[in-house]
Amino acid sequence: MEVSLSEIKYDANGLVPVIVQDADTNEVLMLAYMNSESLRLTMEKGETVFWSRSRGELWHKGATSGNIQRIVEIRVDCDEDTLLVRVQPAGPACHTGERSCFYRGI
Amino acid sequence: MEVSLSEIKYDANGLVPVIVQDADTNEVLMLAYMNSESLRLTMEKGETVFWSRSRGELWHKGATSGNIQRIVEIRVDCDEDTLLVRVQPAGPACHTGERSCFYRGI
Repeated sequence: MEVSLSEIKYDANGLVPVIVQDADTNEVLMLAYMNSESLRLTMEKGETVFWSRSRGELWHKGATSGNIQRIVEIRVDCDEDTLLVRVQPAGPACHTGERSCFYRGI
Repeated sequence: MEVSLSEIKYDANGLVPVIVQDADTNEVLMLAYMNSESLRLTMEKGETVFWSRSRGELWHKGATSGNIQRIVEIRVDCDEDTLLVRVQPAGPACHTGERSCFYRGI
């Protein structure tokens, strides 16, 4: 079953949350956000391109660090307002150098 | 390394996105939202309690369906604005009856 791009529901800021998961280990790496342009670029490049909410700009993950995330698969949830992107990461997902951003418990 | 509850950063609506992952299979099941009260109740009950944005009320997952999600671990991301909850689910996560809400590709 497939969902078309036009069915994706963006929030009031034009964004959709994106869960990034390692396609080999199934480890959850990070949560980020895409707008429609970054999703289009993600599909075009085959690498994750997010919208940086803090910087207010497109963010091609790994463009400077080299830690790109190659797209294996993009999945959509039941109400089409969240994406799950399964990737092969070239390096750590987290700016701290940790493989996953979720390296701490509560 | 541990994060204290008071460090969690809620958005303008008082919510934090929560990735729910099966602790046994590492499958990503769903994305939902918690406010501080639902997080407190989640920790108290040892089962997921979300904030339903559509209904505007607390939502004890599985309270009516029986498909509760028993908490194994709660993790926090690097900027403390997303939670990863690893669970043992008693049944499907999705209201469609699918095990995961991410049952479709794009």
